Amino acid sequence: MSRTKIIPAAQGAHDYPLLIKSLLLSGVRYQPDQEIVYSDKFRYNYRDLLERVNRLANMLSAAGVKAGDIVAILDWDTPRYLECFFAVPMLGAVLHTVNVRLSPEQIAYTMNHAEDSVVLVNDDFVPLLSDIGYKLKTVSCYIQLSDGESVQSELPTLGEYEQLLAQASNHYVFPDFDERSVATLFYTTGTTGLPKGVYFSHRQLVLHTLNTLGAFGAYQGLPLLRSDDVYMPITPMFHVHGWGIPYVATMLGIKQVYPGRYEPDDLVRLHQKERVTFSHCVPTVLQMIINSDASKKADFSGWKVLLGGSALTLGLARQAAGRGIQVHVAFGMSETCPVICAIHLTAEELALPMEAQLPQRIKAGIPVAMVDLKILDATGQWAPHDGKSIGEVVVRAPWLTQGYLHDPQKGSELWEGGWLHTGDIASIDPNGVVEIKDRIKDVIKTGGEWICSLSLESLISEHPAVASVAVVAIPDQQWGERPMALIVCKSEQRLSRKQLVDYLEQYVHQGIITKWAVPREIFFVTEIPKTSVGKINKKQIRAEAEAIRKQHG
Amino acid sequence: MSRTKIIPAAQGAHDYPLLIKSLLLSGVRYQPDQEIVYSDKFRYNYRDLLERVNRLANMLSAAGVKAGDIVAILDWDTPRYLECFFAVPMLGAVLHTVNVRLSPEQIAYTMNHAEDSVVLVNDDFVPLLSDIGYKLKTVSCYIQLSDGESVQSELPTLGEYEQLLAQASNHYVFPDFDERSVATLFYTTGTTGLPKGVYFSHRQLVLHTLNTLGAFGAYQGLPLLRSDDVYMPITPMFHVHGWGIPYVATMLGIKQVYPGRYEPDDLVRLHQKERVTFSHCVPTVLQMIINSDASKKADFSGWKVLLGGSALTLGLARQAAGRGIQVHVAFGMSETCPVICAIHLTAEELALPMEAQLPQRIKAGIPVAMVDLKILDATGQWAPHDGKSIGEVVVRAPWLTQGYLHDPQKGSELWEGGWLHTGDIASIDPNGVVEIKDRIKDVIKTGGEWICSLSLESLISEHPAVASVAVVAIPDQQWGERPMALIVCKSEQRLSRKQLVDYLEQYVHQGIITKWAVPREIFFVTEIPKTSVGKINKKQIRAEAEAIRKQHG
Repeated sequence: MSRTKIIPAAQGAHDYPLLIKSLLLSGVRYQPDQEIVYSDKFRYNYRDLLERVNRLANMLSAAGVKAGDIVAILDWDTPRYLECFFAVPMLGAVLHTVNVRLSPEQIAYTMNHAEDSVVLVNDDFVPLLSDIGYKLKTVSCYIQLSDGESVQSELPTLGEYEQLLAQASNHYVFPDFDERSVATLFYTTGTTGLPKGVYFSHRQLVLHTLNTLGAFGAYQGLPLLRSDDVYMPITPMFHVHGWGIPYVATMLGIKQVYPGRYEPDDLVRLHQKERVTFSHCVPTVLQMIINSDASKKADFSGWKVLLGGSALTLGLARQAAGRGIQVHVAFGMSETCPVICAIHLTAEELALPMEAQLPQRIKAGIPVAMVDLKILDATGQWAPHDGKSIGEVVVRAPWLTQGYLHDPQKGSELWEGGWLHTGDIASIDPNGVVEIKDRIKDVIKTGGEWICSLSLESLISEHPAVASVAVVAIPDQQWGERPMALIVCKSEQRLSRKQLVDYLEQYVHQGIITKWAVPREIFFVTEIPKTSVGKINKKQIRAEAEAIRKQHG
Repeated sequence: MSRTKIIPAAQGAHDYPLLIKSLLLSGVRYQPDQEIVYSDKFRYNYRDLLERVNRLANMLSAAGVKAGDIVAILDWDTPRYLECFFAVPMLGAVLHTVNVRLSPEQIAYTMNHAEDSVVLVNDDFVPLLSDIGYKLKTVSCYIQLSDGESVQSELPTLGEYEQLLAQASNHYVFPDFDERSVATLFYTTGTTGLPKGVYFSHRQLVLHTLNTLGAFGAYQGLPLLRSDDVYMPITPMFHVHGWGIPYVATMLGIKQVYPGRYEPDDLVRLHQKERVTFSHCVPTVLQMIINSDASKKADFSGWKVLLGGSALTLGLARQAAGRGIQVHVAFGMSETCPVICAIHLTAEELALPMEAQLPQRIKAGIPVAMVDLKILDATGQWAPHDGKSIGEVVVRAPWLTQGYLHDPQKGSELWEGGWLHTGDIASIDPNGVVEIKDRIKDVIKTGGEWICSLSLESLISEHPAVASVAVVAIPDQQWGERPMALIVCKSEQRLSRKQLVDYLEQYVHQGIITKWAVPREIFFVTEIPKTSVGKINKKQIRAEAEAIRKQHG
């Protein structure tokens, strides 16, 4: 470490910690009369938000919550959730945003693993918690979140949120404490193993918010989020704090619209009624919205939608653009708070017609400020940023999870070599634009090189006889791994292995793929295994490779 | 301190320090081809900036600069200065931005006090340093900054900046280090005592930059600084890092225009030629620009000018607005990095005609995010934010100097009670808008109350016979202090003490001032003592009160 000059502070000098409460106070100061809307249920302003956060702090303190305790919430996207985003960490406690889409067993596992003490639960999840309540070892009590009459519950509940809030004092003095105190905690689920807990400190969330505000607000070409926007999240608040945007929106003091449970028709209706200008979601949800009945009569012009979580296809981007939606892409993951890359088009690119902009708009964008991002190739070397070379995206930034809760081993694997390994394979072009190519677990590692399963699938899918295709890695004694392809042919179409190999050989000759990329094993099947959310289930295909060989070989 | 949850990081987890280098890398990534212009001398792009910063780091290392060393610069506003803003702190060294407007004795004092080692000096200041060089105890060598042929110098110089830069390698790997390392150092001069050194860490400058970017960029009503702006500073870079804006501009990657030495006609010419859209300066400089010859033919429409440093009068604001200039005010001081307040108009205010907006635009604005700001009344109590009550502005924020260099006593006075005392008296209205009323040293403390000398001067100046007026506090056995007024009457006008007292008594009856505010002593003089920059010299008036009594009593 360099011997830099560090001067002791004068007596009395205030060493200002980066705490979430500052974000809330900013919004209240800037736009005290701006609205926060809960679907068609109620609306209030930022002064009310501050008062409700104060009341919530008193209510939680009365429920026994102390600094360091874990408070869990199971709710749809509501202003209550937003209040918990602030009040719980501002008390010095930790907000566990429970992923309500997990199985009951997984939910019980995460709540025990997190050591939740007080639990705020939407009526819709009371039956679930009643079922698994006996398994929860650390929970002391529950607070019910009801939108009307509360459901009957055998859980030891203290009462209903709004009623308890009304009884609590509206005055609370939030203490200062170490900015490295954990503020939030939630679980990420891969296709393998138990859910893993990631956690973020006040410092990290403040820095993520300040930086995202600059990245989304100050760039004139493609402004995403400014003080006159109307914001409606369509990424669940339990998922990486709604991508961290509720904190940004609150700091800005903008109008926020919380839709409750996501129903495509309701979302469209709310969008139209409240004149929403900015949302974020995964591509599947955007597709559902566009396909919804209510969408047919809706005017989406000027709606900025930030997409992430999985690849945005050119087709969906085009469909959205056709409806007047401005699509933007950001890149990140649960471990990264999440924003590490966001779209940035040059003035020249922005001058192009939208159709010509789309190929650039569906990429992962460039690293936002304060983010160091590189790609590591198959041999562990830094890959050049030439737009062709691929490598695993590794990253450093001030807001990345510093490990996995209670799992130092997995934490040190995540941070191998001092860089957070995203598990994504990408190229970076000379302008810094990142293009995600594959997941590292799906890449075929052959002869010291990486072959992207997605690129290979893309090439094969262009063959006129192919309806759908999956490429996975199978072990190979000589090369480590080789690709295996499952192909569903279009009805009435025939394709032989030789024909497909010949088709791919032309790309080998053109230098587009290496000869190792031509699948050694090709099977024609009637269906490709999919996951519950409709993705190709490569894990299942790899596991069943032997059976596939027997059946189709 | 609360027992919050702090989780040890996983092995290998990168604890990302907030360092200035991240700001530079952001700008280079966002707009690599954007220009940085040095008057009509040369221009280069952000890729060049990064390369030149690398070269400068090598050049300084070769000159013996190590982490913790103090590097001084005496220059006008140039890209060289910008390069030093980055390269010197990025080495872990400290940049002392020498105030070239101080007297030679004061400059020698500050350079010795700071313990400068290597000094970068513009040719214009070589004679000055040659004169005082023998007094400088810690300087090891000089680097000359020449815009043409270097001037002859007897100083031990290593050579000329551009020549040394050209010889240096363009590759440098900047180390990580503690974010609390001091990055910059400069001196603030009050009307009394020796210059005092204030200093800012990497952490503070990064946070000031991120926050200012959000405050100036994301608010739609009054955007000050966005990626398509063209920036030209007109506050010297030695003065609180040009109000910190060069860091913001570089992070954004915008076009920057450095004017060298400020000459009003040159500034206007550069403004027109480079299509500058954003600048900042003190009101006097704006007045000089508007009054300049070149200004008469200039088109200033759309020029956003941020004013600070002293009060913007309605008259100048009106004059500027008449020329199409959008005036904005921010508030801060050397000790505060500096931005702590900035203009924020509501949508309703922005809808008014410009003339009606001006009274709001000339106020200090509202505290920006992350800033806690209050007013302390004469009795040491928090004064209410009612727009009437006044008190001393005290502040907390993540970027305030943590003391004065080598002066723990003055540092602890600055931070008395854990709040930084600005020495400014202000009111805060219910919307949070701060209005500066007076300096605390000029306020009249009488009978446990504060009377603003400026408010009293304003009332007296409205009397038709009064040409100019100064009000100062004089000691009073019974009340502590009472006001004394010096008045210059308009030619051909007569005014008696009784007439003035009667005139003021009406305001007492109306409740606008207290009866203690009516000056006990009133003297009619022919001239009011002024400072070198044209301000009323209240210190001198107070010191000469006895002589004034004798002469005019």
